[in-house]
Amino acid sequence: MKRFDLSLYLVTDRPLCGGRELLDVVARAVAGGATLVQLREKDAPTREFVELARAMKALLARFAVPLLINDRLDVALACGADGVHVGQTDMHAADARALLGPEAILGLSVETPELALAARHLPVDYLGAGPVFPTTTKKDAAPVLGLAGLAAVVAGAGRPVAGIGAIGPDSAADVIRAGAAGVAVVSALCAAPDPRAAAAELLARVRAAQAAARNLQG
Amino acid sequence: MKRFDLSLYLVTDRPLCGGRELLDVVARAVAGGATLVQLREKDAPTREFVELARAMKALLARFAVPLLINDRLDVALACGADGVHVGQTDMHAADARALLGPEAILGLSVETPELALAARHLPVDYLGAGPVFPTTTKKDAAPVLGLAGLAAVVAGAGRPVAGIGAIGPDSAADVIRAGAAGVAVVSALCAAPDPRAAAAELLARVRAAQAAARNLQG
Repeated sequence: MKRFDLSLYLVTDRPLCGGRELLDVVARAVAGGATLVQLREKDAPTREFVELARAMKALLARFAVPLLINDRLDVALACGADGVHVGQTDMHAADARALLGPEAILGLSVETPELALAARHLPVDYLGAGPVFPTTTKKDAAPVLGLAGLAAVVAGAGRPVAGIGAIGPDSAADVIRAGAAGVAVVSALCAAPDPRAAAAELLARVRAAQAAARNLQG
Repeated sequence: MKRFDLSLYLVTDRPLCGGRELLDVVARAVAGGATLVQLREKDAPTREFVELARAMKALLARFAVPLLINDRLDVALACGADGVHVGQTDMHAADARALLGPEAILGLSVETPELALAARHLPVDYLGAGPVFPTTTKKDAAPVLGLAGLAAVVAGAGRPVAGIGAIGPDSAADVIRAGAAGVAVVSALCAAPDPRAAAAELLARVRAAQAAARNLQG
């Protein structure tokens, strides 16, 4: 069975780490409770990306945390990643699934409820939906989805959804209450002075909100 | 057996095609005699790259001309390309071979005789060596190799070498005389007003020089 936990999903951004080593920041975030990691490198040459991905995979294996690669199936295959996350201009999900096989974790970014509906027939395991809040992390970010938009994505998704976009400790619970299975964060961990403490706080907020949501349903 | 002919190796560059469709320029160049095509896209989103690569593969299949993809194994796998060409900062040749399998055509760029020697143990089928002449096509081009440098690469390569870098009809024969199996060209075909006629002229020069070199040896 495919096992992954979207609760606290770290998406990497090297520049946001300041002068710190990405591997060190990720190690601290995972020690604090990050449940899934996506390595995103938009400008690295392929060889450098593969080398970083292999080091990241070795690190995360020690924590039994899966590693997904953003966009690049070649890098994912070369480093033995657990899966790939694709956006709407990356490889088509059906092509990615055909190359990765049924066991790989495959995620897809959606920016609107319409895209979530359009993805219903695609062989993806989860959706990343956002930006939930206004963000400056992504240069080419889509219009803000908001919590209501996120709820609409969840309603049409037919699979787990991670909210993404300027989510922090004060908003994490709202994202879960809107129906998301977890929060995907970039700056909240990469730019945190103490990534371990930041992860622990975020995960506690997410877990509390998840428990409250289960009680509501029960 | 792996079959490819480096004699007239077209490396694509969409901006150099001016307002023309790349597929149309390539179709004309191949009709004129280009023996091998490498699709190089440094800025295209992955989905666009895959779609272009599939159209290119369908086109070249009609001419029985192999298609190689520059750098991106993910695109090569998705489009069913015949192989991949990697540079020194792309995926390591051993990793590429492991992912592509023994039947794929794998080429490697070398900029110096030393890199050609260092590549002797690598599982690549040919080397691309250059720039043989000063070029403005590649922003990050290495120092000029020259014809003597090309001959030194050939001496140490242990496999066929294609010269690349500002090669045109007046210099193609010199490149073959220096020991190259063929000429790899970008502007000489992509920017040619008549790519078919340009390819026919280049191939005639290459074939004549190859025949003369065989006679010298014989």
